[in-house]
Amino acid sequence: MDRHILPVPLDKAYRLLNHGPTVLVSSRHAGVDNVMAAAWACALDFAPPKLTVVLDKSTATRALVEGSGRFAIQLPTAGQLALTHAVGNRSLHLDPDKPANSGVAFWRAEGDEMPLVAGCSAWLACRLVPEPHNQQAYDLFIGEVTAAWADERVFRDGHWHFEDADPRWRSIHHIAGGHFYAIGEPMRAGDA
Amino acid sequence: MDRHILPVPLDKAYRLLNHGPTVLVSSRHAGVDNVMAAAWACALDFAPPKLTVVLDKSTATRALVEGSGRFAIQLPTAGQLALTHAVGNRSLHLDPDKPANSGVAFWRAEGDEMPLVAGCSAWLACRLVPEPHNQQAYDLFIGEVTAAWADERVFRDGHWHFEDADPRWRSIHHIAGGHFYAIGEPMRAGDA
Repeated sequence: MDRHILPVPLDKAYRLLNHGPTVLVSSRHAGVDNVMAAAWACALDFAPPKLTVVLDKSTATRALVEGSGRFAIQLPTAGQLALTHAVGNRSLHLDPDKPANSGVAFWRAEGDEMPLVAGCSAWLACRLVPEPHNQQAYDLFIGEVTAAWADERVFRDGHWHFEDADPRWRSIHHIAGGHFYAIGEPMRAGDA
Repeated sequence: MDRHILPVPLDKAYRLLNHGPTVLVSSRHAGVDNVMAAAWACALDFAPPKLTVVLDKSTATRALVEGSGRFAIQLPTAGQLALTHAVGNRSLHLDPDKPANSGVAFWRAEGDEMPLVAGCSAWLACRLVPEPHNQQAYDLFIGEVTAAWADERVFRDGHWHFEDADPRWRSIHHIAGGHFYAIGEPMRAGDA
């Protein structure tokens, strides 16, 4: 594990997703690793932290999530734009080496085989909270966050520091096709 | 209706939410209008467009949504940061004039009483897709978008133009407390 990657307390994990970044969804089942891009991921609860993510029935990653009952959500950086676009447009169904061919290297937390995408800014390991009706009718999956980590060069002490970090650390926010925005400047409201 | 507010085709409505902005949720029931802030709103489907939003049981707006079966999601701008923070921290339960006291003025689409917050960049009128288990267990509400509009000074021809608009039009993305980020600069991946 990279020395810059530090655990994030679970009660602060929602902050990793609260600003609506596009994410990568990874999973592993029966020895197969995969990862896809998803713009439709969202925090759902604080404690225990939960999140939602939409996984289309055509995706290979969805089958790994359903098979293993686990997945990870991670935040690609502006420096990983091409990687994000690649994993969002290739399929393991057509390319069995999709992760490597998309420029993805995985790291693993100690004692866990869950594939985590190296170079991201934050990671949330989740167990699937099975809700068959949501999954079938809406492609909507609920995860409970069981562990979280962030790269302290951009998230530390429970807060993002995009404004002090190299711009390549900024989160990316997909609109459509190849069109994204990077997160911008901080704003303060009230006394906070 | 302001001359700058134009309808958004429903097949492009997901683009209003795809980059994960913090939103305002408004509703009206039995003659009562209200509005709250929500960071946990997310696109769910393209056609017909659907979205999810988390509405805590303590909120007065939730009761209006459950009573009327309708709500609107709108995107506050950087220029509305104080308004957004105010409607996120006041309650109609304590202040019956919460919207006005938070600086909110409503507009209405022709033939519809749904309160829409003036000055936002985009609006999505929704009918509630009742899912009692999700609502009770997760505070998770699903809406089908029935109409959408945007201010053409920042969204037109199916695309955001944050980079060409006055910075006060930028969407805002909540982290925690009074800490937000504005959306930043565009990025292009692939051939798009």
